[in-house]
Amino acid sequence: MLNIKLNIKLNDPAAAAIVVGKNGTPEKPEGVPIFAWKGESVEEYWEYTAKALDFGDGKGPNCIVDDGGDATLLIHQGYLFEEKEIAPDPSKGKNREEKAIFTVLLEIYEKDPKYWHKIVDEVYGCSEETTTGVHRLEQMEKKKTLLFPAIDVNNSVTKSKFDNTYGCRHSLPDGIMRATDVMIGGKTVVIAGYGDVGKGCAEAMRGQGARVVVTEIDPICALQAAMDGFEVRKMNSLVKTADIFVTCTGCKKVVTIDHMRQMKDGAIVGNIGHFDHEIDMDGLYQDPDVVRENIKPQYDRFVFKDGHGVHVLAEGRLLNLGCATGHPSFVMSFSFSNQVLAQLMLVEQKGKLEKKVYNLPKHLDEKVARLHLGHLGIELEALTEEQSKYLEIPIEGPFKSENYRY
Amino acid sequence: MLNIKLNIKLNDPAAAAIVVGKNGTPEKPEGVPIFAWKGESVEEYWEYTAKALDFGDGKGPNCIVDDGGDATLLIHQGYLFEEKEIAPDPSKGKNREEKAIFTVLLEIYEKDPKYWHKIVDEVYGCSEETTTGVHRLEQMEKKKTLLFPAIDVNNSVTKSKFDNTYGCRHSLPDGIMRATDVMIGGKTVVIAGYGDVGKGCAEAMRGQGARVVVTEIDPICALQAAMDGFEVRKMNSLVKTADIFVTCTGCKKVVTIDHMRQMKDGAIVGNIGHFDHEIDMDGLYQDPDVVRENIKPQYDRFVFKDGHGVHVLAEGRLLNLGCATGHPSFVMSFSFSNQVLAQLMLVEQKGKLEKKVYNLPKHLDEKVARLHLGHLGIELEALTEEQSKYLEIPIEGPFKSENYRY
Amino acid sequence: MLNIKLNIKLNDPAAAAIVVGKNGTPEKPEGVPIFAWKGESVEEYWEYTAKALDFGDGKGPNCIVDDGGDATLLIHQGYLFEEKEIAPDPSKGKNREEKAIFTVLLEIYEKDPKYWHKIVDEVYGCSEETTTGVHRLEQMEKKKTLLFPAIDVNNSVTKSKFDNTYGCRHSLPDGIMRATDVMIGGKTVVIAGYGDVGKGCAEAMRGQGARVVVTEIDPICALQAAMDGFEVRKMNSLVKTADIFVTCTGCKKVVTIDHMRQMKDGAIVGNIGHFDHEIDMDGLYQDPDVVRENIKPQYDRFVFKDGHGVHVLAEGRLLNLGCATGHPSFVMSFSFSNQVLAQLMLVEQKGKLEKKVYNLPKHLDEKVARLHLGHLGIELEALTEEQSKYLEIPIEGPFKSENYRY
Amino acid sequence: MLNIKLNIKLNDPAAAAIVVGKNGTPEKPEGVPIFAWKGESVEEYWEYTAKALDFGDGKGPNCIVDDGGDATLLIHQGYLFEEKEIAPDPSKGKNREEKAIFTVLLEIYEKDPKYWHKIVDEVYGCSEETTTGVHRLEQMEKKKTLLFPAIDVNNSVTKSKFDNTYGCRHSLPDGIMRATDVMIGGKTVVIAGYGDVGKGCAEAMRGQGARVVVTEIDPICALQAAMDGFEVRKMNSLVKTADIFVTCTGCKKVVTIDHMRQMKDGAIVGNIGHFDHEIDMDGLYQDPDVVRENIKPQYDRFVFKDGHGVHVLAEGRLLNLGCATGHPSFVMSFSFSNQVLAQLMLVEQKGKLEKKVYNLPKHLDEKVARLHLGHLGIELEALTEEQSKYLEIPIEGPFKSENYRY
Repeated sequence: MLNIKLNIKLNDPAAAAIVVGKNGTPEKPEGVPIFAWKGESVEEYWEYTAKALDFGDGKGPNCIVDDGGDATLLIHQGYLFEEKEIAPDPSKGKNREEKAIFTVLLEIYEKDPKYWHKIVDEVYGCSEETTTGVHRLEQMEKKKTLLFPAIDVNNSVTKSKFDNTYGCRHSLPDGIMRATDVMIGGKTVVIAGYGDVGKGCAEAMRGQGARVVVTEIDPICALQAAMDGFEVRKMNSLVKTADIFVTCTGCKKVVTIDHMRQMKDGAIVGNIGHFDHEIDMDGLYQDPDVVRENIKPQYDRFVFKDGHGVHVLAEGRLLNLGCATGHPSFVMSFSFSNQVLAQLMLVEQKGKLEKKVYNLPKHLDEKVARLHLGHLGIELEALTEEQSKYLEIPIEGPFKSENYRY
Repeated sequence: MLNIKLNIKLNDPAAAAIVVGKNGTPEKPEGVPIFAWKGESVEEYWEYTAKALDFGDGKGPNCIVDDGGDATLLIHQGYLFEEKEIAPDPSKGKNREEKAIFTVLLEIYEKDPKYWHKIVDEVYGCSEETTTGVHRLEQMEKKKTLLFPAIDVNNSVTKSKFDNTYGCRHSLPDGIMRATDVMIGGKTVVIAGYGDVGKGCAEAMRGQGARVVVTEIDPICALQAAMDGFEVRKMNSLVKTADIFVTCTGCKKVVTIDHMRQMKDGAIVGNIGHFDHEIDMDGLYQDPDVVRENIKPQYDRFVFKDGHGVHVLAEGRLLNLGCATGHPSFVMSFSFSNQVLAQLMLVEQKGKLEKKVYNLPKHLDEKVARLHLGHLGIELEALTEEQSKYLEIPIEGPFKSENYRY
Repeated sequence: MLNIKLNIKLNDPAAAAIVVGKNGTPEKPEGVPIFAWKGESVEEYWEYTAKALDFGDGKGPNCIVDDGGDATLLIHQGYLFEEKEIAPDPSKGKNREEKAIFTVLLEIYEKDPKYWHKIVDEVYGCSEETTTGVHRLEQMEKKKTLLFPAIDVNNSVTKSKFDNTYGCRHSLPDGIMRATDVMIGGKTVVIAGYGDVGKGCAEAMRGQGARVVVTEIDPICALQAAMDGFEVRKMNSLVKTADIFVTCTGCKKVVTIDHMRQMKDGAIVGNIGHFDHEIDMDGLYQDPDVVRENIKPQYDRFVFKDGHGVHVLAEGRLLNLGCATGHPSFVMSFSFSNQVLAQLMLVEQKGKLEKKVYNLPKHLDEKVARLHLGHLGIELEALTEEQSKYLEIPIEGPFKSENYRY
Repeated sequence: MLNIKLNIKLNDPAAAAIVVGKNGTPEKPEGVPIFAWKGESVEEYWEYTAKALDFGDGKGPNCIVDDGGDATLLIHQGYLFEEKEIAPDPSKGKNREEKAIFTVLLEIYEKDPKYWHKIVDEVYGCSEETTTGVHRLEQMEKKKTLLFPAIDVNNSVTKSKFDNTYGCRHSLPDGIMRATDVMIGGKTVVIAGYGDVGKGCAEAMRGQGARVVVTEIDPICALQAAMDGFEVRKMNSLVKTADIFVTCTGCKKVVTIDHMRQMKDGAIVGNIGHFDHEIDMDGLYQDPDVVRENIKPQYDRFVFKDGHGVHVLAEGRLLNLGCATGHPSFVMSFSFSNQVLAQLMLVEQKGKLEKKVYNLPKHLDEKVARLHLGHLGIELEALTEEQSKYLEIPIEGPFKSENYRY
């Protein structure tokens, strides 16, 4: 049996529905316990994470579905203290977050200094879907501190290309429209970064009749943008004339305060890339000559001394989450299906996997795709025996080599 | 001096801002009086319309900006009763609306049985921007009952092509996304009608990665759709497999209850055409076997006996108004600019126009366009003298013949 | 019975096939006589035109299918000399063409000074498909010199929008590719003029991954280009950086020699608009410092003193005709169907039409469309009785008002 | 010094120009020797390949630029016979081609039974750009028979995505238009296979206003097609209604004779994938009931018993090569730049590489891109020091991980 607990950030009504379950009542829930509430503090967050991993009687999960890698992190840190036989010291935490982690771990350590060892013994492995989470796992693999097998579902085609490209193609115009009610057609839109996210964003803006100009640092992606019919310029060449700026780089200070200083009055600036420092929000907040006027929730006008203002979406955080409702469920279903198949693989391969980071095998990536064909009314052709032999590809796949780029 | 009053349906905060004006206060407004409130009854609507036309001392407007033709209608009906010297009889109204009109007119008639004659004496003319309003004006022109010159701004290119095509290209995905949060990409979307509205809708859906199929009754528009790369089928061929249905026909019962009976569970049905009978809402409401479940405001699930449900946007009314915020201000600015230029023309040509329906002259249509070039950073080329002579077209335009289709 | 003769410019093999006909032989042709050969002189052209109008025994055609208006012109000029009882004097012709016309007419006049009167007596009317031809007809109508009814098929939607827009969308890339073998993707292409032709051209270039920039003199068309996502600039802002220049204006000197002087080495310049003076070819030919190098038939490099060269397609004539094979037959079928329906109308309405220029009625325009639906597999929806009544539109059409723009 | 010889298939005028060189004459060439002529036999082909590898005095090339792997094959086979000290026996060749190879090798073996050993001693390595050639190299690497390092430039992004996707986007419509003059707009086009080639083809057909339907065996690519707005069906569901069929699969019998038997009269069938068996040409040739009618070079009509005919492009070979002029030079420049950089790497890394198949390093792939930016007027943004540190990516690149998919 697989035990399931969730440590997720949800709107409270959604969370409530999950807890109660289909036939349960608030008094007698028959759903899945949830350890989170909207608006919780950092300290609460880590306390709840520990609780979600506590299945009672010193038991924990055997399989971990991680999104960001925090559950995995907590286990590894707890295990390390036990290994060194040192009680965690919250005062030594480098920042508020680390202090919170140490506090939680200290409490556990004082009760049972071998608690995490017992948990780890039972873990088959984890699967992880974010770039950041996978990066941490790879670092641990390198340092040989990884305690159980891990599956990287972030690298699946049905994750990276679907979530990033098709998800943002939907949620970028959604976010801009809900926040600003400004016509996109006819406007000049700068898409900073022509990776998976940028490609989806550029397509969406063109689909609304905008003129799209791309900025890039990578000459290959820059050429792709040009071959797709987009002008490719430096940000400095664009700041004075463009109407809407969208960052999708994963980098920082892509739109600086100096850029914004030169923009047209009413220019719209938003981020759909990664963290909230693609736009230099700190620069805006700290400049005493810049006045912030809130237009409505998640939509602010920052007015410069000369009177012109730029309109920033979602305080520089992900505009599709802040100003709309994020990606549609259909595209999230791809990511979650990857997680489910990864989890099944952990169970099936129990004991056979090393303490390494694995990619989800291509046939499972293809299976995720296969599971979604019906919803879109897709008819799939099948190889004949003759064709299969000719191509040296099995009829049921996988159909492409590992380094195929799609 | 032009006297200005507004009889418009606005969100109340917007209305309040207009009334108060830039330097005024609620106590001492310096803005424009408004005679309307959100949620008013039909009776109030006509009462306020009459008030908006009453400038005091038996005076009324000299120029009328109409949107739907109701102000013009009220004046003409009032004038007719006076002409016949018959007091309006509310009990003879054919429906609630006509009863309301007669009630308002009776009250005025009893006070001053030549009230509307005096008003009409001062009117230079009206301008009208809706198909319905223009239709009424043309009927009156035919019957020679039109009391003053009228300008049809609905037929301007910068109205019909901009409002309809570009406006809906923006507000269709906006409405669907806000209401449903459903992914449009990969879905099969039926666009019923490939007129100006349908063209914008089809482009928007394709721009989101949907597969678009068009239905048409007009063979020319059907061919245009095919030549633009869209499949063109009958509705009956599509009802079982498509995911989203959008009506843009101006016709009635384009999506019937029988169609909806055959649709997939979860099919989305919305109207962005004209009135709320493009989708057979009455059929849904009246069928005792169909159960309505409200998902959220402006978004309902109608469940059929076999358990499948269709999701209807905005109760079959215009989904961009019901589920989003209508067209963006930029595209409305074209329509309103047409109105303003028509009004100036009424003043300039005072006394020279007949009691007819005029199109806005092409040079004014072009002027509306010209006024919006700067906002989009457009550089316009100018004819040289030599070119102007060669083409027999004045350097400043107009550039096209009256029947040019753009 | 309708007598048919052709006065057309055809490749000789095609002409031969028409003359011989399906069951004939060169010795015993059973096809249609042709009065033209490829490469004929201006003098021969007019001689043959007269012959094509001569059915023997003083008889001529009853219905004229004209493309450019030359048959109609010859009849009208001949008629005028007879009316004035003056023999045409070739030496008074203003140019080579007029001298040729007068020569032909003189020969006829000397044989029979009432020849054209007899011809005109039998003519039901003509139909004309070019802008130039229609312009001439309208001038004659104005001056009341038009001798028979004329139908303008140039103004049909299925002519103007199909031939111009969809035809050029096909034949522009066809011409560029065949002539130059240059990659269009990634290039900056200037489309001069965003009328029906320019719209098709811009779409085709974007469809090949080019970045399209538009030039316009008409603010409405300029805005349409911007709302379709294209940058709109003056030619002067573009000459130094763009790769390909395509004129589609109907105007002259749209690309001047000064423009070409500033272009990049290898810039491609072509015309798909109207006559061969949209590009200033005379300027190129007459400048002693410009050296012409023929690359291959219909493709020349003009080298300027500084060593840079521009590559001109088809000597500035229509590049789709010069460098490819013109429009595909499917789109020409629309134009020719309009001609056929116009001819049938002339016969059916014989005696009922005035000496005026008529548009082809909308129901015939729609019929042309209807005849082409099957070829593209289009299913057309039909109005129900209820819908027909509601819209006040007959079930069989016509479906739109005369000024509808499509 | 690098010795250069070419063994290439070229149009003879192009070959002549290369041989003569810039300042040479046919009598005193100063160009590069060429060992090939258009229309040579298989026997001549291998004889010339051997000659191209013979630099005189028992010397051969130090670096090999291969396209298909034949030069590399000849060297390896010759070496193997010498190693086994067995004279090649042409009569033992399995087919005409192998017999030709053995004949060439025998002649050399008889002159010098250590000829290829001396050649191999001097070879730094080879670079190879085709899928087939790379496949062979990988087989040799596996069996440890590879005699020198090899660089796979087929896997570069700037090769695989540019040549395949953008090249075919250009040359598919080029081939169809030149061969058929048929209008693509409004037609239903089946694109069999949505890999790199299929993606470019689908975009090109849509860009011409066609309705594109995709067939796929790979569920991931099938979903990509759907998310890009294309219908995805089985070939059997399409054969009766589609107008144009294009194979881009790399597989065989994708369009079978049974498919063609069911097609509409005039259906167009072409291949832009790999070899000439994607369309079952053998089936057509061998069926006694199918009559072949040549329309023009590289364009045939195959008529079935019931009278309907299908129009096959380029006898089922690559239609862009057969019916047009292949890819434009700009896109080929990417492939050739990869070859050049690979060759420079072979020289620079001389002695340091193992007898393995290497990918071209990502920084060289990016360099190929960088070299082409100027031609398209692309401005590239550069990372700041701060950004470089944050991303842990060097300012000069490479910018992406090895498994990034672009």
